[in-house]
Amino acid sequence: MSLLRSSLFTGVIRQHVEHAHLGHHLSRRAGTPAEASGFGMATAGPEPPGPLGSLGSTSQAMKKTIGHRGIDPTGETTYKKTTSSALKGAIQLGITHTVGSLSHKPERDVLMQDFEVMESIFFPREGSNLTPGHHYSDFRFKTYAPIAFRYFREMFGIRPDDYLVCSLCSEPLIELSNSGASGSLFYVSSDDEFIIKTVQHKEAEFLQKLLPGYFMNLNQNKRTLLPKFYGLYCIQAGGKNIRLVVMNNLLPCAVRMHLKYDLKGSTYKRRASAKERDKAFPTYKDLDFRQDLTDGLLLEADNHSALCKTIQRDCLLLQSFKIMDYSLLVGVHNMQQACQEQASRVAEAGATDQRRPPGQKPLYNTAMEAIQGEAGGMPSLDTEDQ
Amino acid sequence: MSLLRSSLFTGVIRQHVEHAHLGHHLSRRAGTPAEASGFGMATAGPEPPGPLGSLGSTSQAMKKTIGHRGIDPTGETTYKKTTSSALKGAIQLGITHTVGSLSHKPERDVLMQDFEVMESIFFPREGSNLTPGHHYSDFRFKTYAPIAFRYFREMFGIRPDDYLVCSLCSEPLIELSNSGASGSLFYVSSDDEFIIKTVQHKEAEFLQKLLPGYFMNLNQNKRTLLPKFYGLYCIQAGGKNIRLVVMNNLLPCAVRMHLKYDLKGSTYKRRASAKERDKAFPTYKDLDFRQDLTDGLLLEADNHSALCKTIQRDCLLLQSFKIMDYSLLVGVHNMQQACQEQASRVAEAGATDQRRPPGQKPLYNTAMEAIQGEAGGMPSLDTEDQ
Repeated sequence: MSLLRSSLFTGVIRQHVEHAHLGHHLSRRAGTPAEASGFGMATAGPEPPGPLGSLGSTSQAMKKTIGHRGIDPTGETTYKKTTSSALKGAIQLGITHTVGSLSHKPERDVLMQDFEVMESIFFPREGSNLTPGHHYSDFRFKTYAPIAFRYFREMFGIRPDDYLVCSLCSEPLIELSNSGASGSLFYVSSDDEFIIKTVQHKEAEFLQKLLPGYFMNLNQNKRTLLPKFYGLYCIQAGGKNIRLVVMNNLLPCAVRMHLKYDLKGSTYKRRASAKERDKAFPTYKDLDFRQDLTDGLLLEADNHSALCKTIQRDCLLLQSFKIMDYSLLVGVHNMQQACQEQASRVAEAGATDQRRPPGQKPLYNTAMEAIQGEAGGMPSLDTEDQ
Repeated sequence: MSLLRSSLFTGVIRQHVEHAHLGHHLSRRAGTPAEASGFGMATAGPEPPGPLGSLGSTSQAMKKTIGHRGIDPTGETTYKKTTSSALKGAIQLGITHTVGSLSHKPERDVLMQDFEVMESIFFPREGSNLTPGHHYSDFRFKTYAPIAFRYFREMFGIRPDDYLVCSLCSEPLIELSNSGASGSLFYVSSDDEFIIKTVQHKEAEFLQKLLPGYFMNLNQNKRTLLPKFYGLYCIQAGGKNIRLVVMNNLLPCAVRMHLKYDLKGSTYKRRASAKERDKAFPTYKDLDFRQDLTDGLLLEADNHSALCKTIQRDCLLLQSFKIMDYSLLVGVHNMQQACQEQASRVAEAGATDQRRPPGQKPLYNTAMEAIQGEAGGMPSLDTEDQ
């Protein structure tokens, strides 16, 4: 922790850095190597997807068969032998149903028992009294702790109709092509606000066990930078369980991050690989941060102090969860550079962002706004990550 | 629950009733008769003590040897063979120490693990580096979940220095003479705000297990009428463990309650006994309520609706705790009668309340203020319960 703080906050003077976007990036449980690579709750680890149209031949080349993730003869990604398209379909049918049926249940307080609940609904291909017909194989959709996650979504200001259903279930989910080494599959909602990630059995179990502590943190540490967990589900198909977590996208593309750092507070082998550096928008690491930003980042005194306090509180919680290998994801939006980009985009007529109309604000608070404790206005900028 | 509500809120018209004071009175766990009589978390079940000076010969006559509670040859109450005076001394030394040592620990968020913590400090008669000398036998003072209870006290607006220490530890504790049939010993603080009650091993264990759910309730159900738990302690002396819970006094004497009802929502044998009715200020039961207040109690529409909602939420929590035998304690302050009493007291010159200077407000919110969701002003009245 002290290393983390010293690398972030030593002599913070850097005038042109005007928007730092931060969030914790949980990646591993202490002492449980089997779960290590899988607990990648990060939402910005994998490269953000390009505009929908570009998910073609280039992304196929990057696909790899790792763990449960595979590729079928047609070139489509699979997870535990279920095709990505069937998985996406089941996710959308399942979430639509579970959020819809929750809306008929009266509001009530979350109880300790609610964290252990699992609701289940069967989706036969031909449809049923409760579920619509579909074109995939029969599947069962299970919702972990529905009442608890409804509470979390409310705490995060997500209204069931306007946001979760619209964002996740009315528009296609986008598969992230560069899903990293964990063998997980990542999807992002069309509006770029939600990430859906496959998790292993143990990870889902672990997350469910953490929910009471997570609840307590949300009620005490309002500015927490921990990932926002919106739902935990399991799709049972073809005798396999595919578990999924829905979280916030830490770095939605609405604000272009010119620099990204994944900081662990360690200097041991903490430099981005040559391969990572070759990317258009690499995620750098601690040693790069030290080298590139010798003066650190400039934060206003109040924000600096609030951020330090929040990181301390978050770390205390992570420590209590016995999670030790997490990182702080720092995104830097360079205002000066953004203005230049905007100007050059205006010059090239016709260039538009296909994912978010210009001028549209991100739906939910950014981490920086959370740190500041208020939803300050944010400049609306076109973004192009591809 | 429906019975409870119907008996309370059917046709509520009663103009002269202007202050109803309510609170849940937990008394028993479902299906565990061994703990049944002991989980009397009520704070107004036993008769409030009279002014300090009156605790003399009359109270001795009412003492009974029940369970762990006994009387020694000098006539002093004992609990597990420890005299009441030694117990009071140990309580005050222990709480002073534990609250004092907490104040040196930095504020931090409560974690799930904090509910299971038990801190222990030894008080040798001759004193130690950490503890003062005293005139009782050596004892050990254990504090359950100190960080969690610090959080609860803060939630309840109790500052460590001004309230807990002053109320509980600087002035003598008053032993309640009419401690009921549970075999528990009750103390009230001199300012009449706090109740200390001995609890059995199983009860202390049970309460500690409930703490996470209690935490969740406080964060969601701000107007809860459940008892306020301020601390749970254990005094180890002479090879015996004496466990104590500190709670709010539901009906502090600052506001005189002209009528008191202990309502369970049942009509089976729910009439105050002849012995109870003979008391100066009896606590009546459901059948008495129905008979005496045929039109119920008048509450403003907003308060009525808030109260119903709060009772529903409280009951849901109690149900989740598998507690079924609780009651709603209703205190009625009759404004008209109070004015008459005040007038007659003014007429008799020299009559003063020894426990609270006239005009002093109770320190903490009343249940009615909690229902209303604001700390409204309350008329200050002299009270005489003896």
